[in-house]
Amino acid sequence: MTSHTHAVRIYDTTLRDGTQGEGISFSVTDKLLIAERLDQFGVDYIEGGFPGSNPRDITFFQEARSLRLKHARLAAFGSTRRAGVKASDDLQLRTLLDSGMPVMTIVGKTWTLHVTDILQTSLEENLSMIEDSAAWLTAQGREVIYDAEHFFDGYKTNPDYALRTLAAALKGGASVLTLCDTNGGTLVDEFKTIAARVVAEFGPERVGVHCHNDSGLAVALSLAGVEAGATLVQGTVNGYGERTGNADLVAILPNLLLKMHRSAHCAPKLAELRELSLYFDELANLRPNTKAPYVGASAFAHKGGLHANAARKIKSSYEHIDPALVGNRTRVLVSDMAGRSSIAMKARELGFDFDEKAPAMRKLIEELKELEFRGYEFEAADASLKLLLAKHLGRRSKYFDVESYRVIVERSKDELVAEATVKITANGQSCHTVAEGTGPVGALDQALRLALEPVYPQLKDVSLSDYKVRILDSRQHANARTRVLIETTDGRQHWGTVGVSDNIIDASWEALRDAVDYALMRHEQKL
Amino acid sequence: MTSHTHAVRIYDTTLRDGTQGEGISFSVTDKLLIAERLDQFGVDYIEGGFPGSNPRDITFFQEARSLRLKHARLAAFGSTRRAGVKASDDLQLRTLLDSGMPVMTIVGKTWTLHVTDILQTSLEENLSMIEDSAAWLTAQGREVIYDAEHFFDGYKTNPDYALRTLAAALKGGASVLTLCDTNGGTLVDEFKTIAARVVAEFGPERVGVHCHNDSGLAVALSLAGVEAGATLVQGTVNGYGERTGNADLVAILPNLLLKMHRSAHCAPKLAELRELSLYFDELANLRPNTKAPYVGASAFAHKGGLHANAARKIKSSYEHIDPALVGNRTRVLVSDMAGRSSIAMKARELGFDFDEKAPAMRKLIEELKELEFRGYEFEAADASLKLLLAKHLGRRSKYFDVESYRVIVERSKDELVAEATVKITANGQSCHTVAEGTGPVGALDQALRLALEPVYPQLKDVSLSDYKVRILDSRQHANARTRVLIETTDGRQHWGTVGVSDNIIDASWEALRDAVDYALMRHEQKL
Repeated sequence: MTSHTHAVRIYDTTLRDGTQGEGISFSVTDKLLIAERLDQFGVDYIEGGFPGSNPRDITFFQEARSLRLKHARLAAFGSTRRAGVKASDDLQLRTLLDSGMPVMTIVGKTWTLHVTDILQTSLEENLSMIEDSAAWLTAQGREVIYDAEHFFDGYKTNPDYALRTLAAALKGGASVLTLCDTNGGTLVDEFKTIAARVVAEFGPERVGVHCHNDSGLAVALSLAGVEAGATLVQGTVNGYGERTGNADLVAILPNLLLKMHRSAHCAPKLAELRELSLYFDELANLRPNTKAPYVGASAFAHKGGLHANAARKIKSSYEHIDPALVGNRTRVLVSDMAGRSSIAMKARELGFDFDEKAPAMRKLIEELKELEFRGYEFEAADASLKLLLAKHLGRRSKYFDVESYRVIVERSKDELVAEATVKITANGQSCHTVAEGTGPVGALDQALRLALEPVYPQLKDVSLSDYKVRILDSRQHANARTRVLIETTDGRQHWGTVGVSDNIIDASWEALRDAVDYALMRHEQKL
Repeated sequence: MTSHTHAVRIYDTTLRDGTQGEGISFSVTDKLLIAERLDQFGVDYIEGGFPGSNPRDITFFQEARSLRLKHARLAAFGSTRRAGVKASDDLQLRTLLDSGMPVMTIVGKTWTLHVTDILQTSLEENLSMIEDSAAWLTAQGREVIYDAEHFFDGYKTNPDYALRTLAAALKGGASVLTLCDTNGGTLVDEFKTIAARVVAEFGPERVGVHCHNDSGLAVALSLAGVEAGATLVQGTVNGYGERTGNADLVAILPNLLLKMHRSAHCAPKLAELRELSLYFDELANLRPNTKAPYVGASAFAHKGGLHANAARKIKSSYEHIDPALVGNRTRVLVSDMAGRSSIAMKARELGFDFDEKAPAMRKLIEELKELEFRGYEFEAADASLKLLLAKHLGRRSKYFDVESYRVIVERSKDELVAEATVKITANGQSCHTVAEGTGPVGALDQALRLALEPVYPQLKDVSLSDYKVRILDSRQHANARTRVLIETTDGRQHWGTVGVSDNIIDASWEALRDAVDYALMRHEQKL
């Protein structure tokens, strides 16, 4: 029986190591939602936090006890006991135990330099610290996972001692020995050779890996660990983590399952991978990485005329996997590099029957190039693109004329007011409305709705669901060209519109108008 | 003599394959600036574009002829001749030759599926197309580099035929055979085995690699290619490129030079790597990836209290290389996970003598946590952080009181106006000013300056240099909490300030006020 027959266990540390990432912060509620989502996805272990380090993690573990998880085991993270103290007397280990979690992951020192210079203790005492800590926690009925910090650096300095630290953890009852490339500096070949040496010594079922992306190799290192025989992989969703991030489970999983043909408990949920990734970004309040392998919005996007054409002919030629396997899809990008065939493909994707040879096509391409040159981007604004296509096909309806709008923001000491007025003509009726909002765009949106709803009551269900701003040439200072993307919903569907201007209010106004036009055309089933 | 003694040649395709990336577009001027910058950096080959595909690339090559490059050779990209046509009669090959570049890179088919189904020709004719095209261009005195498209997929389907395509290119006079993992789907081990087979057949000096990041492995694959003996690496700066991007030269180079101890012509310029990366993002108008290996702003940033402390003790423990080698530096992050020692370290980094045990420290930490909770971020706003530190040390000066401000944006048909009024008291004088701008923030900035400059003439040299907006909880719709980051300069130095509010104008106002306060305190050498 070779190591290749072992299933790979997935150990998620998004809630602990992931929160060390710059700009990553989760509330206790976020953490509970994340733990449930990871369990649904089929992850094997969920490391929830470091109860010794901060009160938020202690609260999380208190609340986590009432979670009803289907499969995942929750782990609390801590370190080995201090030097010269009994494990049972170590405050940090007691706090760890008090988390009440079934799994305790403890980190210990491998690198002799760290033992002598940071812990300032002897090499022998460090071995006892590892063994005692594991043994005491095991005696309390917990599964202990041992994280060997700086394992690769330690091994390169003193391989015998590095292996002895692992043996100590095993003697203390640890179920898994995780080899951590803590500073992310190891290259693939060396990593694999060292991991294989550990697997030969302790057996594949005992060995895990934990990698960081400092050399741009975290995914490759994790896979090399599995090739070497390791059967547990630690990582974070979307590669969140300190510095350049932890190993990204979202990239590792499809490589393991689809290409290396390994098994894992979460395999049946692979088609939810993109959704999982987006959910985490939403909770972390990060803009999704469009270039993320497998799940990014661009991962199966085709831009060049050549490729777009070939992709249509032989889809597999430019797609290494079927995007549906990870919940993603093929996209055709509209850009000034795209020829007629790409635009026609995109038009068909949007439901238009667009003749590639029609003269309207040339005019459309000209306007698209002009708009893209000015900073418009339709990749997240399909509704604005559809309105443009409808215009060139002579199918765009006009629902209202704008005479003027005005926005005022005024602060006087502690009082802050945003007010908008809108003057439009709709269906022959002149409407002049005023509204307040927390900010200028909210006020403007409100005033436009007040003006239109009496004439078009179908807009009552329509509301803004997302608002994004991108400064296009920020070096042009405060008058920089600004692109606003607005997402609107009628409760069932969402659509995106875009506006660009040197004036952020006017860019928002343009996107708001498109959003309303699109809602009205859709309601009449003209789009 | 083993392959390991060969220098590695760096072939940059940012200007061709890089521009296939979503959101990447360079003007002709940008492209010329980039070519010069790459040459200064010491890249060996610069692929400037695909003259057959678009007029912009033809213009670029016309202009590029007058560039005076020190070392790099410029390459134009094209494909092998069409089936059934003489090379000298092929329009696309003629256009390629007309670019006048010393190097012609031609892509040809390896994969039998593509020959029969996309080119719709015979396997033998494809071999002739490769050989003829290379031979004709070589006869015109050009260096020919052959890009073997889909090499790895082709090799797996039919290894003999794949090798015959390379032999045909070599027979035609190609100097380098580049093995392209076109759809980015190959894993490291398989890639290395196949590359080694090609190196054994044709010799290391003839073999190059070209990788994509679809599996999250582009850096690892490129390094594996070099390990297998390849001596030319194609890639793009910052990994720009279609879908998930091309192999990132910025991550590959330090791995090659610092860890694999290989040589390359650009080695002496490695300390300019971060600057190079930022320059490209600026021209591409992309926000730099803070998590980029080696060069990202977070690549050597320490957040966790534990690590920050240890990093101070043994710097190499959590830094895989000395950041100065790639032009980067260690940063200490302020966050709610950081303890007193991190904040004291940061304060010292900013030039404050802050006693860790002082009661002011507790108040500072409380306010920082509160501000971060509300969405403030000081990582790009050192000036706001310094003002906060000065406040807690009782050293913050007050230069003006704000009574009120008002911003009006008004559109009436085609006329758009942004006007701001500001009412402040400075040095006992009451000032009430009004100004117009293209947008509301520009107008506000202008009005504030008009009010303050008579009292503080030293502000004349101070101006906004960057303005960024981030919607923090975009799902809260148009009234979303907004963070504004402003960068200001006095012509010598730059400083960042931050403002957060549900109202984008008020958030901008807060950052503007901090920017001016900081300028005034600096002028008096109080900061």
